[in-house]
Amino acid sequence: MEDITSILVDLFIIFACAKLAGEIFLRLKQPAIVGEVLAGVVIGPYALGLIGDPSADFVTLFNGDEETATEALNVVYDVIAGLGVIILLFVVGLETRLSELMAVRNRAVAVGVLGIIFPWLLGFGFVYATGQSDVESAFVATAMVATSVGITARVLGDLGVMKSEEARIILGAAIVDDILGLLLLAVVVSWGEGDVDVVELGVTAALAITFVVFAASVGTHVSRRYSIHLERLHMENGAFFVAMLLMLGLSALAGVIGLAAIIGAFLAGLILAEADERFELERQSRPIYEFLTPFFFVIIGTQVDVAEFKDPSVLAVALAVTGLAIVGKLAGGMLGSRGMPIRNAAIVGTGMVPRGEVGLVVAGIGAGIGAVSQDMFAVVVFMSIATTLVAPPALSVLFRGVVAPADSRETDLAEP
Amino acid sequence: MEDITSILVDLFIIFACAKLAGEIFLRLKQPAIVGEVLAGVVIGPYALGLIGDPSADFVTLFNGDEETATEALNVVYDVIAGLGVIILLFVVGLETRLSELMAVRNRAVAVGVLGIIFPWLLGFGFVYATGQSDVESAFVATAMVATSVGITARVLGDLGVMKSEEARIILGAAIVDDILGLLLLAVVVSWGEGDVDVVELGVTAALAITFVVFAASVGTHVSRRYSIHLERLHMENGAFFVAMLLMLGLSALAGVIGLAAIIGAFLAGLILAEADERFELERQSRPIYEFLTPFFFVIIGTQVDVAEFKDPSVLAVALAVTGLAIVGKLAGGMLGSRGMPIRNAAIVGTGMVPRGEVGLVVAGIGAGIGAVSQDMFAVVVFMSIATTLVAPPALSVLFRGVVAPADSRETDLAEP
Repeated sequence: MEDITSILVDLFIIFACAKLAGEIFLRLKQPAIVGEVLAGVVIGPYALGLIGDPSADFVTLFNGDEETATEALNVVYDVIAGLGVIILLFVVGLETRLSELMAVRNRAVAVGVLGIIFPWLLGFGFVYATGQSDVESAFVATAMVATSVGITARVLGDLGVMKSEEARIILGAAIVDDILGLLLLAVVVSWGEGDVDVVELGVTAALAITFVVFAASVGTHVSRRYSIHLERLHMENGAFFVAMLLMLGLSALAGVIGLAAIIGAFLAGLILAEADERFELERQSRPIYEFLTPFFFVIIGTQVDVAEFKDPSVLAVALAVTGLAIVGKLAGGMLGSRGMPIRNAAIVGTGMVPRGEVGLVVAGIGAGIGAVSQDMFAVVVFMSIATTLVAPPALSVLFRGVVAPADSRETDLAEP
Repeated sequence: MEDITSILVDLFIIFACAKLAGEIFLRLKQPAIVGEVLAGVVIGPYALGLIGDPSADFVTLFNGDEETATEALNVVYDVIAGLGVIILLFVVGLETRLSELMAVRNRAVAVGVLGIIFPWLLGFGFVYATGQSDVESAFVATAMVATSVGITARVLGDLGVMKSEEARIILGAAIVDDILGLLLLAVVVSWGEGDVDVVELGVTAALAITFVVFAASVGTHVSRRYSIHLERLHMENGAFFVAMLLMLGLSALAGVIGLAAIIGAFLAGLILAEADERFELERQSRPIYEFLTPFFFVIIGTQVDVAEFKDPSVLAVALAVTGLAIVGKLAGGMLGSRGMPIRNAAIVGTGMVPRGEVGLVVAGIGAGIGAVSQDMFAVVVFMSIATTLVAPPALSVLFRGVVAPADSRETDLAEP
């Protein structure tokens, strides 16, 4: 048992700043999440440094090696942030029925596929044209394809429109997007390391698709049919424990397969949505969501090093990549959901825009194998955060103009 | 953002084993917490090794240095476990009124003071008699004084007797115990480092006492009088966020002062108990408690290295120290609560017996400055876990024989 006081102080600062910034943004009629991410930028190690620098005691734990201590501290943050976004997607899953998802499956697949192709081609073309190598261009392009559905899910929840058709399409598309993104990443990493193994790729694809299909179909069936037996457990509130266990288990399994952990968390929620009413799982999960989720958004913000953009050429590339990332997803989303009114299609496209942590993971892997330079890493960070900050206000504005049934939608920002 | 998959797998294993072992123990009519701690012993790095050994990917994050990666992994576990016991004591605080605590203050102080003196003298005398140095004897004795009220609080909650007079005395005594333990530790550390600074000790004592008194008196007053203004916040469910913020803040502050973080968490709960009804804080905190608390108990168990006790002389010392630790606290608790019926006084004494993580922290500090040998560290670990395992069944048995008002007590183990 180590003394974790310095980390408790950090968690207190993160939570306090998240809520303070969120409250300020709500009073300015802006989405709270934007305030939370910007709070992270401000208090992070590259700006005020209120968090992210290990305390002297903490460095002592690692034999005085400050770099290692910083890495360990980041792992702690990432685990807390990871649990935050996992519980977020779990709650979103609890609010989603498989049948509702299946009703929009064609549009969801189209949005997912086109939303991968457009940004990738635009990104690759542009970065390659600026004179980077083909491998580096491919990494940046791949970092541009992966939507971070956590951001959009939070905004949709805050707007009270989680039950809308657009929300369903976005959630379904995010799953497709993540599977394709996983395969693209596998290809690009093999390319960067110099050997593309087609058999391995096939296995990865088969595993990922099997996992999603099996969890969604068999999982929901078992849950509908057998969840009543959870009442037989001796432990108090056994159903809730099983729910948390499934959430952790499918998140971990998704991660082992190579998918984002949040896909597993969403599937766990989707499975348990069939048993939610009996056991009040959503009511019980929500406080955990409210406690842990703010950490995710603040910690996303702490990754930004504003000093990187003093170099105007880096800033120009970052702005261009961000523009293409937005245009690519908007085009993919709107084309994929054609047939809907233009405003609704724009909502779908905008919902796919935020890249958040997923782009950072891809760029981090690229930097890890030496395929992505520091400058291009900074560009990806900029693009991830900028797309994350742009989408929430745009979604609020777009939803304000949509006529919706009173029972499923509210446009008041503060009260879902 | 790092890939945290291997840690998610660990968390899944911990949670699954905690609940499985807890369920088995409940079916055997034993306290679930004992199963959870034993599950930790079994799956920990010294036995099956299901958790506690970093994955290959995780080691890569730390430049291939396995020892550093293990240390980082332990920090992650400790933070999750720490949050678990913090929310536990916060909920206990929410169930406690300051007035009820003040009603038992004389007994609580007597139990706290005597429960420090007896185990310390017994421990110091015995270890010194076995031929250890005076400083090492003092460290072991100090590790024997600190009650881990988290263990007892969990058992009292599971038994549904948190509102009993005995529970109040134990909670009050645990605060006194922690303040005195902090001062003892400060003395022993200075002794081990060769310079005792009386002024610094006085400052530590003043700070700790001021913190507790100020939080308990001014905090509860402010909460009673002004908490209604929390309704003015724009954020949804603002009162709950302020509650979580106060919990993290006072825990961190207690840690900075040198007290256990859980004392701060308990005080935060005590303060907000005055506003609990209006904002349903306990109802909202309970799912977080149920999600995070099992990690604490399992992770306590993972610290035990059973192989250390193959040496019969180490085992003999460990058994003797454990016996003295139990006798010392029982005597202190029963003498401090004399005037109560013998069975009720025995409950108070037994409730002070578990040492849990606090003894481990003290011994860890001693080992860190070279004052505690590896053998004596193993002895302290044994004593901490053994006292933790002995107390819960004893408490269940003792409470079964107590005639209690129907509205405040239930003796069914499974249903509080």
